[in-house]
Amino acid sequence: MYMAKAIILAKSVRHLTRANPRVGCILVRDGDVIGAGATQPPGGPHAEIVALNSCPDARGATAYVTLEPCSHTGRTPPCVDALIKAAVIRVVVACVDPNPKVNGAGLERLRSAGIRVDIGVLESQARALNPGFNRRMRGGLPFVRLKLAMSLDGATAMANGQSKWITGPMARRQVQRMRARAGAVITGVGTVVADNPSLNVRWDETDLDPGPLLPSDQPLRVVMDRSGRTPLDAQLFKIPGPVMIISQSASGPTQQAWADCGAQVVMLTAVTPATVLAELADAGVNEVMVEAGPTLAGAWMDAGLVDRLVVFQAPLLMGSQTRPLMHTPNWTELSDAVRLQLIESRAIGTDRCLEYSVEKA
Amino acid sequence: MYMAKAIILAKSVRHLTRANPRVGCILVRDGDVIGAGATQPPGGPHAEIVALNSCPDARGATAYVTLEPCSHTGRTPPCVDALIKAAVIRVVVACVDPNPKVNGAGLERLRSAGIRVDIGVLESQARALNPGFNRRMRGGLPFVRLKLAMSLDGATAMANGQSKWITGPMARRQVQRMRARAGAVITGVGTVVADNPSLNVRWDETDLDPGPLLPSDQPLRVVMDRSGRTPLDAQLFKIPGPVMIISQSASGPTQQAWADCGAQVVMLTAVTPATVLAELADAGVNEVMVEAGPTLAGAWMDAGLVDRLVVFQAPLLMGSQTRPLMHTPNWTELSDAVRLQLIESRAIGTDRCLEYSVEKA
Ligand SMILES: NC(=O)c1ccc[n+]([C@@H]2O[C@H](COP(=O)([O-])OP(=O)(O)OC[C@H]3O[C@@H](n4cnc5c(N)ncnc54)[C@H](OP(=O)(O)O)[C@@H]3O)[C@@H](O)[C@H]2O)c1
Ligand SMILES: NC(=O)c1ccc[n+]([C@@H]2O[C@H](COP(=O)([O-])OP(=O)(O)OC[C@H]3O[C@@H](n4cnc5c(N)ncnc54)[C@H](OP(=O)(O)O)[C@@H]3O)[C@@H](O)[C@H]2O)c1
Repeated sequence: MYMAKAIILAKSVRHLTRANPRVGCILVRDGDVIGAGATQPPGGPHAEIVALNSCPDARGATAYVTLEPCSHTGRTPPCVDALIKAAVIRVVVACVDPNPKVNGAGLERLRSAGIRVDIGVLESQARALNPGFNRRMRGGLPFVRLKLAMSLDGATAMANGQSKWITGPMARRQVQRMRARAGAVITGVGTVVADNPSLNVRWDETDLDPGPLLPSDQPLRVVMDRSGRTPLDAQLFKIPGPVMIISQSASGPTQQAWADCGAQVVMLTAVTPATVLAELADAGVNEVMVEAGPTLAGAWMDAGLVDRLVVFQAPLLMGSQTRPLMHTPNWTELSDAVRLQLIESRAIGTDRCLEYSVEKA
Repeated sequence: MYMAKAIILAKSVRHLTRANPRVGCILVRDGDVIGAGATQPPGGPHAEIVALNSCPDARGATAYVTLEPCSHTGRTPPCVDALIKAAVIRVVVACVDPNPKVNGAGLERLRSAGIRVDIGVLESQARALNPGFNRRMRGGLPFVRLKLAMSLDGATAMANGQSKWITGPMARRQVQRMRARAGAVITGVGTVVADNPSLNVRWDETDLDPGPLLPSDQPLRVVMDRSGRTPLDAQLFKIPGPVMIISQSASGPTQQAWADCGAQVVMLTAVTPATVLAELADAGVNEVMVEAGPTLAGAWMDAGLVDRLVVFQAPLLMGSQTRPLMHTPNWTELSDAVRLQLIESRAIGTDRCLEYSVEKA
């Protein structure tokens, strides 16, 4: 029960922790919750510290933590030291930290300080809080959500390009929440040229509390732009927050001009979903949201690197003179089709939001 | 409460009544249900007669009937006479019969026999039992359900034609139930040529009880075939039950050959959804199910004659090298798109069955 509370706390900061794992901590003594906390934005205190600071005295308490407390000094001092110093008598942990710098070391330190340690309570639920972090810590790539908006019959625009307001305002609000949760939002230069989007989180369009985040604390906005077509007056550059342009053959002056607009420019020998994801893993991104047009959405699906597909389906038939959901020139046989598994289906205004996991071939 | 029971009874014979309205009747005396019945297949007794026959003596009872009892002699004698003769003291009716041959006359006859008559109990629920019958009796066209099976991204087949098993066996079972409920199942000659379907109800693939229906008591199977391409060895002809081919320019010998195969041949100056529907209204069809390929599905949607769209959506991405859900060459602007309203969303195995009403332009 206490661990379930800690998990709910961790969920409540999903949109704040960026490269850090989302963690919740509950302090309990004699059956009373005496302290509670969740991870603060990067540079801020971890969940355990927030919880300890929330009560005058934690002596004799049990700490329920969704992730093993850290034993190394990062941007903040180790949480295990704080727990030992606070004289808690027991620490219950949902899952061991996959971070090789921790990975059981924190638990060892607690045990040698005479604190009882139990692990594995609600482990899978707690693990699901940080799918990207867990994978990246074990040397893997970030977790990828591909978001697409379409009509019931899978169209994203009329052939002439008309596409405004296929989905309703509540669906667009949900997109803001998805962005807030992501470490990076990726788009294609096609969308930048066609729509000139901001791709930022507009907190006032969500029901989320930005907490201590500044307006400039935004997910990294990434443009995949092989040949260097992103215009210098793009909306992206005008809005606070980091921007990365990943290119292949942009000229030196174009790269310089982007840098002058405040963007980080990354040149790769091939701009593909796999190389971009490796780059973002290096940059400490746990979760990626891809918000692109049919070309890039197709490239991501084709690469087999999408974990979750989030589809906003509007109750609309657009017919055959339309642009498809994804451009997949290589999928010619039925055996090329990708099987999905429905995870959640939800009404959002008059639209439906369908979340699928992608079955790996 | 008794009327709700009568409605449930009427629903239970949805697949049996064909041109007749679905009606349920409950007989109650001193708070006890003493008799119950629902409409039997054409030629068989109406609900009231089945209910009266189900109890030895209905004297002093109240009859709850979902539709006004008939006062005219059709294939069976008038139900009002039977109710009067059985000496029921009160008749509660959900809705008045829209059939101009009845339309209140039954209620008058009961009243002049000294029976108390109440109307309007659960009226809208009872009316919804017979959307096609109600409309047709007021001079309108049959109620149309368009069934389509597709991938999540709205594809019905790969461009090369591959399409087998997009949806699962449970969805196909549901299609059988939809056929059973329809007075006519319409398809296009394109589907006949490509798939050679039977289009019949295979009771053993449903959980429905065919009751007294013979294997040959099938919904009318209709092929829209302007130029006369339906082959004489089509599966349609080999299976018991009525077949109608509606054509425009089929040659005399072709028409003769179809007739020799047992089909009813209807020649029209133009084979369109509107003319076909008028033809079927004349033939006593209340509800139509359209099971066609993209060409005819598009023609039906374009004609604005679809009341309900039933979409089976498989959790599959088929991509861009595919055939669309509907071919709509005239829909070029976003304003040509058709708005839908979700009525029901249901999991059927791993597929979803989405039922929409179509908003008329
Ligand atoms: N329905 C939705 O959810 C949704 C979401 C976003 C946008 N859209 C719509 O989509 C339309 C734009 O579609 P789009 O397909 O042109 O844009 P896109 O998919 O966003 O961008 C495509 C471009 O990305 C570049 N790219 C970089 N690396 C790539 C790679 N590895 N593989 C493929 N492409 C790569 C390519 O340009 P280079 O070759 O020059 O690099 C390519 O033309 C707009 O009208 C927009 O409104 C819809
Ligand atoms: N996904 C599904 O739910 C589903 C359901 C059924 C079939 N299918 C697939 O659809 C494919 C066949 O597609 P299709 O589009 O060729 O077949 P279709 O839509 O069943 O039939 C089209 C044909 O109907 C005739 N027709 C008669 N009156 C018409 C009118 N007023 N407007 C338009 N057409 C009229 C036309 O031929 P004439 O000009 O010669 O009269 C036309 O070519 C098959 O591969 C089948 O497997 C899919």
